[in-house]
Amino acid sequence: MIEKLAIFGVGLIGGSVALALRRAGAVKTIVGVGRNRENLDAALALKVIDQATTDAATAVKGADVVLIAVPVGQTAAVMGRIAPHLEPHTVVTDAGSTKQDAIAAAARHLGGHFPRFVPAHPIAGAEQSGVQAAREDLFRDRNLILTPVPQTAATALRVVGELWQACGARVREMQPEHHDAVFAAVSHLPHLLAFTLVDEIAGRPNADELFGYAAGGFRDFTRIAGSSPEMWRDVCLANREAILRELDAYVQHLSRLRVLVGQGDGPALEEMFRCARRARRQWLAEN
Amino acid sequence: MIEKLAIFGVGLIGGSVALALRRAGAVKTIVGVGRNRENLDAALALKVIDQATTDAATAVKGADVVLIAVPVGQTAAVMGRIAPHLEPHTVVTDAGSTKQDAIAAAARHLGGHFPRFVPAHPIAGAEQSGVQAAREDLFRDRNLILTPVPQTAATALRVVGELWQACGARVREMQPEHHDAVFAAVSHLPHLLAFTLVDEIAGRPNADELFGYAAGGFRDFTRIAGSSPEMWRDVCLANREAILRELDAYVQHLSRLRVLVGQGDGPALEEMFRCARRARRQWLAEN
Repeated sequence: MIEKLAIFGVGLIGGSVALALRRAGAVKTIVGVGRNRENLDAALALKVIDQATTDAATAVKGADVVLIAVPVGQTAAVMGRIAPHLEPHTVVTDAGSTKQDAIAAAARHLGGHFPRFVPAHPIAGAEQSGVQAAREDLFRDRNLILTPVPQTAATALRVVGELWQACGARVREMQPEHHDAVFAAVSHLPHLLAFTLVDEIAGRPNADELFGYAAGGFRDFTRIAGSSPEMWRDVCLANREAILRELDAYVQHLSRLRVLVGQGDGPALEEMFRCARRARRQWLAEN
Repeated sequence: MIEKLAIFGVGLIGGSVALALRRAGAVKTIVGVGRNRENLDAALALKVIDQATTDAATAVKGADVVLIAVPVGQTAAVMGRIAPHLEPHTVVTDAGSTKQDAIAAAARHLGGHFPRFVPAHPIAGAEQSGVQAAREDLFRDRNLILTPVPQTAATALRVVGELWQACGARVREMQPEHHDAVFAAVSHLPHLLAFTLVDEIAGRPNADELFGYAAGGFRDFTRIAGSSPEMWRDVCLANREAILRELDAYVQHLSRLRVLVGQGDGPALEEMFRCARRARRQWLAEN
């Protein structure tokens, strides 16, 4: 049982953690912290949090766990604000999509408290953002990845692992660099491809007509282009090298496809599409 | 009321047309024609069609309407097989994703019957293919595009328009070249991007691990990579020039994004993502 949990950033992720832990009976008091008083009031009204504050010191005082659930570009600033006020036993964790940058920020800002920082990434999301979109089942049966470093305290790691298990997540561990490379491929790259497609079409003189004839395939393909611009800006900045590698590999593969289309190579095109369909079906069957 | 309808290719599209017309009471007898006896037997068992044959002459004899619903690469061959057997009044139509190639094939193979060929494209589909996936509501409130040419007979155009209205579709008209350009952008390109992403990841040594961490965003983004390889091969061959133009425009836009990521240009990245999200939301609100 967590006596006091402070959540910085009561949006889709932070709010869903609050709802899930409450339902599991795993927390007594939840304090929401944010820059935006309106959002905090909404979170209070929705009973997602018990108390709200914009003051880091108040929030952190006596907290067993501090969860940082802000866009990853703000993680370092939040760490700087909480560092002077942390209790010796407080466990700090985050929920960002990139992990090497969170670890570097913690090393820089948390000082001697660094071993009690546990980097974490829930593999769940939604097209909508904000506390109104929070759901207690957002993490149920989803992967949650912990990326501890050699200095990470085993007790802190256990606390965070149990927190996410209480949310229904499947807790895994991964090396931070490896985490960032994997998610550059299966998450960051697809988001950028979808944003690019929608932006490219939106910029055309006949954009309205084009969107008017877009159908279900386009809708699903571009669902992730409805995601938070601020969050994805920060992901691009935080995981730049891995994302550039993925973009380059993708463009190279796409240029091979272009050659096949240009040559009218039917058998090779069909073979490529067949491989893709088979791989996707196998994935769906196993997951 | 159509007394006799012959459907070449009783798959997702052909089967769904049969079910929709039957439900609307708009057809008396439906004959399914195909290469694959097993599929025809399934269509008979599912009561999608009344009769089945592999013989084009039998199928076409006395037919008011012939619907060609095969992968677009086979359209020309089907036209060649039916041409000698068409009744003077028979209307021929298709359901292919590309229209200029269908019109060229009709001009080449249907001879004097060309004015009674009506090129059509229903903007509906599904991840699954085959008659088992057919649904009577597949076209309800979906766009159906007719791309008549100057020679097209008004009576034939009306028959096909009414057929699709009976299926619940919203019937529109478009120039064939314009149709092929529009769908290269909003349909063909996204399919190729999705096939490419899945194929690229499937070819990596750690493909299993990568797929294992793919989440809902990846699932939706790649849904269309589950589409028929044969159909999409044919679309690439039939609409090559427009698809190449779209691939080039997309890669150019993606290379601009790459520059922004490489430079770590947060404001420009956020602006691009914001434009894309706004455009997509506006589209969803209007459609």
